Amino acid sequence: MKFLRLIRITNLLIIILTMVGVADYLLIMHNYQKVNFNFLDYSLLVFSTVLIAAAGNMINDYFDIKADRVNKPDRLIVSKYIKKRWVIILHWTFNAIAFLIGVYLSYHYKTLVFAFVQLVSINMLWFYSIYFKKKLLLGNGMIGLLTTLVPLLSVWFFSVLNESQVTHSPFHENTWSHVMHYNFIYLLAICAGIQNFGREIVKDAEDIEGDKLIQVKSLAMKFGGRVSVLIALYFIQLSTILGVLFFWKNTEILNGYEIYFLGIASTLNGILLVIYLFNKKIKIRTVHLILKLTMFIGLCSLFSVFIR
Amino acid sequence: MKFLRLIRITNLLIIILTMVGVADYLLIMHNYQKVNFNFLDYSLLVFSTVLIAAAGNMINDYFDIKADRVNKPDRLIVSKYIKKRWVIILHWTFNAIAFLIGVYLSYHYKTLVFAFVQLVSINMLWFYSIYFKKKLLLGNGMIGLLTTLVPLLSVWFFSVLNESQVTHSPFHENTWSHVMHYNFIYLLAICAGIQNFGREIVKDAEDIEGDKLIQVKSLAMKFGGRVSVLIALYFIQLSTILGVLFFWKNTEILNGYEIYFLGIASTLNGILLVIYLFNKKIKIRTVHLILKLTMFIGLCSLFSVFIR
Repeated sequence: MKFLRLIRITNLLIIILTMVGVADYLLIMHNYQKVNFNFLDYSLLVFSTVLIAAAGNMINDYFDIKADRVNKPDRLIVSKYIKKRWVIILHWTFNAIAFLIGVYLSYHYKTLVFAFVQLVSINMLWFYSIYFKKKLLLGNGMIGLLTTLVPLLSVWFFSVLNESQVTHSPFHENTWSHVMHYNFIYLLAICAGIQNFGREIVKDAEDIEGDKLIQVKSLAMKFGGRVSVLIALYFIQLSTILGVLFFWKNTEILNGYEIYFLGIASTLNGILLVIYLFNKKIKIRTVHLILKLTMFIGLCSLFSVFIR
Repeated sequence: MKFLRLIRITNLLIIILTMVGVADYLLIMHNYQKVNFNFLDYSLLVFSTVLIAAAGNMINDYFDIKADRVNKPDRLIVSKYIKKRWVIILHWTFNAIAFLIGVYLSYHYKTLVFAFVQLVSINMLWFYSIYFKKKLLLGNGMIGLLTTLVPLLSVWFFSVLNESQVTHSPFHENTWSHVMHYNFIYLLAICAGIQNFGREIVKDAEDIEGDKLIQVKSLAMKFGGRVSVLIALYFIQLSTILGVLFFWKNTEILNGYEIYFLGIASTLNGILLVIYLFNKKIKIRTVHLILKLTMFIGLCSLFSVFIR
């Protein structure tokens, strides 16, 4: 159980849900097209991504022991329940397996993209833990970017299948010419990145005390908790603007229920900002929970294709 | 000066010479073909490779301080002339610049190969320093592999230029159909890998004393210096076999002087083995120097195209 908490199992389940959602969405949206979807290979891609995220979560706790003794002493796992040495060994083992899966997929589909993205993610999470998380906004930005990468990885899997140059592949110009459109997934990926970037800023505002010990320069440290949360809440409204622009330019997608889920999430974002502006007693913890909720609602939009 | 020794400047010059050699060889061998060779971009690729090698050499010394105090106390640089902290900072800076150059080249030539190979090399050198060099033969194998990678990287640069799908590119099937052949470079790359693998085993035989301190499990540690050098010398004869097979199957390449240089290098390898077998007084240091010489002679074969 301690181990499941160390790897942040809910976090990993969300990644699985996202990637399954993207696959379901693309397969149902484009069910008139021949995409040679291989369930096993896609599962390997999801598994490899989850391994990297798990390794990233572990190594992050490994370097956070000092701060976590103050921020969440009751939830400290590394050094208390699991030996530091084991965390390192598991971290590299998970990453090695994940990278090898990436290499296999790259070899199998004749594209470097899977091995490359997985290796970049492994490196990004490592540098996040040892350096970037202590730098103003850079660390938060990296987490936002990595969030965006999860749905993008799924898109790249489909685009490799779809745009293959092999004769009779869907996109081969002489035999078939339909190309999948991923615009909705792109929107979702960017919004997820924005939302998680904001959530990270809010999280930093919760962790001020312990972060002082390990010299983290967070936005909250610089401007205080309240101001930094306010900046984060203003920033996440960007998703709403992007969403409106997107549906205005891509009216053909309006035939699903996706828009309702994203609408609810955006509205909640807006209400949260207004409440935070006028109610000075609202806890940062509550803001954090609501931001998690809006992300989950946004994610649900991927499964709205089943409602039709 | 100390800094030049820390990054192993001769080692880096050899890398530059190799990559320049491959480019010269391919350009002169295929001078009837249109390859859109960009000197600046190729220089960037060479520079990026050199940066990674320099960073790898630095970090290797960083983790070797303890052993080097015994093996080469007079040549110790890290901690004595350059602060440990600076070595780490320079190491990551060099790698970051090298990776960004890889990303630029990948973006420019629309192929992931440069960013990917550079990132893999950075990771391999890091893992070599913290783990693999202490493992029996694995570390030596990794150095062999990285040696092979240097000429291969040049080949990939040319194959990206040559096999581009753009109309009027040399390989575009409707407009031009000549494809470069890189077989000779492949042979050279593999032989260089074999030779350096052998040289690493010989180097380990020189370093037994200090390696005991940092728990390195080298072949020399297991079987003694003399036996391990003998194994290495037997192993490098493989190059001769590969060379004979190659020129037998690729007689069209026999119009250059390449074969003479490789012939001299192979003969020297053979003589070295025979001398070592019968003269028990020969120093390991001498063997090491001769192996460096044969590698250099092999490298000269790339420039033999100018003799014709």
